[in-house]
Amino acid sequence: MERILATYRIAAPESESRARAEALATEQSVEMPLAAITDERILRDVVASVESIRPHADYFDVVIGIAPSTTGNEVSQLANMLFGNCSLQPEVELVEVRFPAGYASAFPGPRFGIEGLRDLTGARGRALTCAILKPQGSPVEHFAQLAGTYAMAGVDVIKDDHGVANQAEHPFDRRVPAVQRAVDEANRATGGSTVYAPTFSGGPRALATQARIARDAGVRMALVAPMLVGLPVFLEMQEDLGVPVMAHPAFAGAQRIAPPVLLGTLFRLLGADAIVFPNHGGRFGYSRATCLAIADSARGALEGARPALPVPAGGMSLDRVDEMLSDYGIDTMLLIGGGLLAAREALSQRTREFVERVRRAGHPQDRGAVESGG
Amino acid sequence: MERILATYRIAAPESESRARAEALATEQSVEMPLAAITDERILRDVVASVESIRPHADYFDVVIGIAPSTTGNEVSQLANMLFGNCSLQPEVELVEVRFPAGYASAFPGPRFGIEGLRDLTGARGRALTCAILKPQGSPVEHFAQLAGTYAMAGVDVIKDDHGVANQAEHPFDRRVPAVQRAVDEANRATGGSTVYAPTFSGGPRALATQARIARDAGVRMALVAPMLVGLPVFLEMQEDLGVPVMAHPAFAGAQRIAPPVLLGTLFRLLGADAIVFPNHGGRFGYSRATCLAIADSARGALEGARPALPVPAGGMSLDRVDEMLSDYGIDTMLLIGGGLLAAREALSQRTREFVERVRRAGHPQDRGAVESGG
Repeated sequence: MERILATYRIAAPESESRARAEALATEQSVEMPLAAITDERILRDVVASVESIRPHADYFDVVIGIAPSTTGNEVSQLANMLFGNCSLQPEVELVEVRFPAGYASAFPGPRFGIEGLRDLTGARGRALTCAILKPQGSPVEHFAQLAGTYAMAGVDVIKDDHGVANQAEHPFDRRVPAVQRAVDEANRATGGSTVYAPTFSGGPRALATQARIARDAGVRMALVAPMLVGLPVFLEMQEDLGVPVMAHPAFAGAQRIAPPVLLGTLFRLLGADAIVFPNHGGRFGYSRATCLAIADSARGALEGARPALPVPAGGMSLDRVDEMLSDYGIDTMLLIGGGLLAAREALSQRTREFVERVRRAGHPQDRGAVESGG
Repeated sequence: MERILATYRIAAPESESRARAEALATEQSVEMPLAAITDERILRDVVASVESIRPHADYFDVVIGIAPSTTGNEVSQLANMLFGNCSLQPEVELVEVRFPAGYASAFPGPRFGIEGLRDLTGARGRALTCAILKPQGSPVEHFAQLAGTYAMAGVDVIKDDHGVANQAEHPFDRRVPAVQRAVDEANRATGGSTVYAPTFSGGPRALATQARIARDAGVRMALVAPMLVGLPVFLEMQEDLGVPVMAHPAFAGAQRIAPPVLLGTLFRLLGADAIVFPNHGGRFGYSRATCLAIADSARGALEGARPALPVPAGGMSLDRVDEMLSDYGIDTMLLIGGGLLAAREALSQRTREFVERVRRAGHPQDRGAVESGG
C-alpha cells in the first residue's frame, strides 16, 4: 500500500531542513539510529520516508511518508505515528494528512452523516438549528424546562453544555430521562422532531452505563468530546450507542495539529456525524479560513466516508445567522448557546426567531424568492 | 470544599487582564453570560472565581478557582474544567494546578509507586535501568532475542518501544508471551528479576484482551501512553491490569499544559507508577528546569498519593548516566534506547556497562566509597 502522507510545518532555519526532515521521519517510525538497523526490509518498508521539503520564509513544510502497517489500522497507533513523539517538539506542527486509497475505509466514518441527521430531524432544504442546556450546576428541572422551551420553539437539536456531564447536581441517570421526556412532550404538542443530545463523559464503564440509560430513555443523539474520552473510546463507544454523535472540541486545542486535520478529518474518520468548532469572530481566535477548512474536511471527499455536519459555535448570535449560512451553506448546523439564554424571559421568543430565520433562509438559491415572499 | 486553583498564563496586554480573567472563569465553568443566570447558588458555588491576577512583562498569570463539584470527581470532566474550551485559545496556557484537601484522594494515584517498583525489580539503593525493544516492524524473534540480551545484562526494566503495539508484524498475542519467556529464561539463568513492560494500545476492548494475554504470560509491568488511549481509559484499565504502569508522553505535547502538570501531577493522579519524559539535551527541547519540575511533580507531596518514578529519556546515552543521577538522584529510572542499540554487535557489552555504571553509582552519598572500591 502507498504511504500515509503527513505534512509537518517545522519552525527552523532552512539550512537544517534536510536533517530535521530525516530526524522526523525516524522519530515517527522506528525511533532509533538507522545505522543500527540491519534488516533491509525494515529500512525499506517500515522507516518513514521524506517525500518532499518545501521552504517558506520562517519555516519549511516536510511531507513524511508513513507506512500504513505501522498504524495497525488502529486509531491510537495512527495518532502515535502521526503526532506521538513530535507532539513534544514545540517547533513541529502537523498541518495535513492524506491517506492512500484503501486506508480510510478501515475506519467507520460517520454512521449517519448529514443525510442521517436530516432524516432524524426532518430538516430539509435548510440549515439545522441547535441550542444548549446551560448552566452546569442547575437542577434537573431547569434543564427539562429549558429543553421544553427550545423544543416548543422548533429547534432541531438541543445539546447539553459539554460541562453538563455526570455531576452530583444533575447526574446523567436523572437528567437525561427527564430532559428527553420534556422534549418528547413538546414534539407531541408541535408535531416536530426535536432531538436531544446529552453529554457522554467518563471512562468506558461509565459510558456503557450512560448508553444503556440513554437507550432506555429514547435518546436519539449523543454529544461527546473525543479528546476528553480518548480517540479510541470515541470510536468504540459508537458501536454501542447506535445514534448519531456530535463531536465537541474540548481539550482538542493541541493547536499544533491543524484544526481541519484533528477536528475535521480525524474526528470524522472515527465516526463524528456532526462536528462542533469555534467559529471565527466569536470567543475563540480561529480565522475564517481555518473555519472554512474545517467545514471542508467535515464534508469534502474522504474515501467512502459519509459527510459530517459542520457546527460553527462559540459565542454566536442571531445577527450572524445570515453570514454563517452564506459561509457554510445549508449543510450546516447553527449552534447558539448564551446568545439565546441572554434573552432571559424572552428566551422562547428569541429561540423562535432563530428557528424562523434559519427556516426562511432555506436553500441559498431560493433565498431571494423566500425573502420577497416573507 | 475549597476550590481547585488553576493558574493560567495568558499572553495578552495587561490592560485586558481583568476582562480576560473573568472571561476565562466563565469559559471554564458555566460558559454563558453571567447576567443570564438567575440562580444565586450557581453564581456563588458553580461559577469559577478569579482568585488573583499577576502581571508580567508580556503576559499575566491568572489563578482561577474551579468548584470541585463541577468535575464530578471524574477525570474527563476534570480535564474539561481545567483545559477544555481554553485549549482552543492559543494565548492561554495551563501552568499550575493545586487541589484542595480531600480532592486528590478521589483518584487512585500510583498503586505501586517507587517502592513497589523497587520490590518488583529488587533494585535497592540505586537508580533503576531501562532498555527498549526496537525497531517496530521487526519479527517477534528479534524482540525476544533482544530482550534476552538485555535481561542477561541485568537491566531492571525492558520496555517495548511505544510504537511497537499490536501491528501485523508483531501482534501482541504472539510478541508478548515470546518476549516474556525470553526474559523469564534469562532471569532463571542470572537469578535476576528483570521486568518486561509491553505497550498496551487501542480501544477498551483491545486493552481488555491484551490484559488477559499479559496476565496469562506472567507480564509484571505495562507501558501505556495515557493521551493515546485517553485519560479515563488509562485510569480504568489499571483496575484490570494489576501491575505497575509506566506512562509514556506520546501525543501529550499539547505544550500549553505545562509538562509538570500533565505528565507529572495528572498522570500520577491517574495511577502512573513510572513516568517517561524527554530529558533535556536529548532529541526534545525541554529545559533542565522543566525536567526537574516534572520529577518534582512525580515524586513530591500529593495528598495521599504514592510517589511515581521519573524516567528521563529521549536520546540518552551512557555518558550521561552520572549527570542524570546527579540531577534526579536514585529514585529514578534511566532509560536508554537507541544509545544501546547503536552498539550493534557490542549490545550485550554496552548494556552491561550501563547496568554496572548505575549499580556502581549507587546511592549518591556512598558514591565516593563505592568508586574507590570499584
